[in-house]
Amino acid sequence: MNEFAKPTLDDVARAAGVSTATVSRCLNAPDRVIATTRERVMQAIETLGYTPDFGGRALASRRTNTVGAIIPTMDNAIFARGLQSFQEALSRFGKTLLVASSGYSPAREREQMEVMASRGVDGLLLIGSARPEASVEFLRRRGIPFLGAWNLGGEDGYFVGFDNRAAAAGLTEKVLAKGHRRLAMIAGITEMNDRAADRMEGVRAAAERAGIPADELPVIEAAYTFDEGAKAFGNLMALAPRPTAVLCGNDVLAVGAMQKARELGLRVPEDVSITGFDDIDLAGVVDPKLTTVRVPHNRMGEAAAEMLIRLINKEQVERRIEIPTAIVERGTLGPPTPDPAT
Amino acid sequence: MNEFAKPTLDDVARAAGVSTATVSRCLNAPDRVIATTRERVMQAIETLGYTPDFGGRALASRRTNTVGAIIPTMDNAIFARGLQSFQEALSRFGKTLLVASSGYSPAREREQMEVMASRGVDGLLLIGSARPEASVEFLRRRGIPFLGAWNLGGEDGYFVGFDNRAAAAGLTEKVLAKGHRRLAMIAGITEMNDRAADRMEGVRAAAERAGIPADELPVIEAAYTFDEGAKAFGNLMALAPRPTAVLCGNDVLAVGAMQKARELGLRVPEDVSITGFDDIDLAGVVDPKLTTVRVPHNRMGEAAAEMLIRLINKEQVERRIEIPTAIVERGTLGPPTPDPAT
Repeated sequence: MNEFAKPTLDDVARAAGVSTATVSRCLNAPDRVIATTRERVMQAIETLGYTPDFGGRALASRRTNTVGAIIPTMDNAIFARGLQSFQEALSRFGKTLLVASSGYSPAREREQMEVMASRGVDGLLLIGSARPEASVEFLRRRGIPFLGAWNLGGEDGYFVGFDNRAAAAGLTEKVLAKGHRRLAMIAGITEMNDRAADRMEGVRAAAERAGIPADELPVIEAAYTFDEGAKAFGNLMALAPRPTAVLCGNDVLAVGAMQKARELGLRVPEDVSITGFDDIDLAGVVDPKLTTVRVPHNRMGEAAAEMLIRLINKEQVERRIEIPTAIVERGTLGPPTPDPAT
Repeated sequence: MNEFAKPTLDDVARAAGVSTATVSRCLNAPDRVIATTRERVMQAIETLGYTPDFGGRALASRRTNTVGAIIPTMDNAIFARGLQSFQEALSRFGKTLLVASSGYSPAREREQMEVMASRGVDGLLLIGSARPEASVEFLRRRGIPFLGAWNLGGEDGYFVGFDNRAAAAGLTEKVLAKGHRRLAMIAGITEMNDRAADRMEGVRAAAERAGIPADELPVIEAAYTFDEGAKAFGNLMALAPRPTAVLCGNDVLAVGAMQKARELGLRVPEDVSITGFDDIDLAGVVDPKLTTVRVPHNRMGEAAAEMLIRLINKEQVERRIEIPTAIVERGTLGPPTPDPAT
């Protein structure tokens, strides 16, 4: 090799004393190479200043070894845990994850799909199923495999998620079983958010089954921030009669509600019960710890990675993988205290 | 236009009754087009099924209108707020942000740089300055403008951040001023993390100035998780004499420490003071609320976007933009209680 020539895969293989296939594997699926070999190869790459030509490789294999994810938000770590597992599983397949966040805007999600498509991704993870048909069509026409996570979707498409509606109904039944009749809900913004809409429907359905009609169950939709949760909770506490249990569309709203309860001098759960959804780290940090729905973030992330890899490889896959949720009973749900005024 | 022909920019311009330049602007810098025009153009794009050819455009302008960020983690929303502001500011310049997370691994960060480079990004945001010189060289050779955020870096490169060392020293002085002499620290893992290392140095320097030598200030390094913070706090509380104030390298560690204190039956701040760093949302959620260092996430994200756009446009920029931090005194720092044993 000439001093000024760009080092090639062959040069690296020769320097490391391995085959070019092994060098490739070190770059594409490092976990499939034993550590000592990988180190020798990586050292040769470093010493020679070899730069893998991803562009060229992509052209050759039509693969970029890049996977995209478009999530609604990076804030409050709602999607962080699942995405982390998704990324770790992908990296075992030699894929790198690029993430964009849409701010819950379908228009921005669409723009990001276009960027992902033009930058070249082998596949795409989206959250849920609520989006304009045109966005779905865009990906189909481009032949980019994609799936929805965090929910189970409708007739079409591939999903790895859980049943938001059933989980919310199950938690509501638990609240009703404690003796609560005056329920209220702080839901996420349901427009173009199937997870938020399903959770709201689940709460309503369980309440109706218990003989509480929808018009006796006040629901406020609020963006997933502490402040919005607190504000909505304040409004619900001003109702007469006051709700004895407030079901929240996620943990962030629930923690906002708890903060407001403290401000109002209301004890949780003695004066009012509050429940969350997601079981993010936050749920274990507040006092009392939050009763919530545990979402299987790790298993979902891993299963999503495996499904997407299969879609990319054009292998057979099931259309939906449902992962069970669980109710985590901690300290914020108790029986209602009889109203001193009645 | 033939029914089967791919619609072009000209077709869109004609359908919307605007110039092709206006259509381009709608796609590249939508905020620079008035809303009614933009809507008309977007409708024409939708109706015709026009797909902007980013690849071709990138070749023409050598720009992809994509910016990358490689952050250490998406968990606990440590970087989420700043990144959100970064993204919002970028979108005003018509740029889309793609994010990768390296898990605090320099090797993975390097891989992600290679992916970003091969996918085509106009510029790159990195966190801090601690990384192998080879990684920096890789970006320089490829001509990809980049900057470091969350810290101020060394001699070389561009930075938008704050003085982690001075901020940690300032908070330590505040702790000392309350009368504490038996300090301890739970630091982040300092290897290849300049922010964690600077915070540790700041605490040590302030303590030394107050006559407390380094060997009388126990420091445990811990990964940024609640569990690791709790474990380290437990170990510090087992020391004799027991520290009366524990300075934590970030809010996540501090909240983990608070949880452990509760478990141990220690009141905060009566029995032990605890401080954090970052002022993420979490800090306002725990009880008592956390005394911490407020990091100017929004201003930093915006300033980083502006600097990176200037670097991409080859405009003149300052090498460093320092954004001031502030100490937020809440409920976890109080005076030390005299030790009953002494």
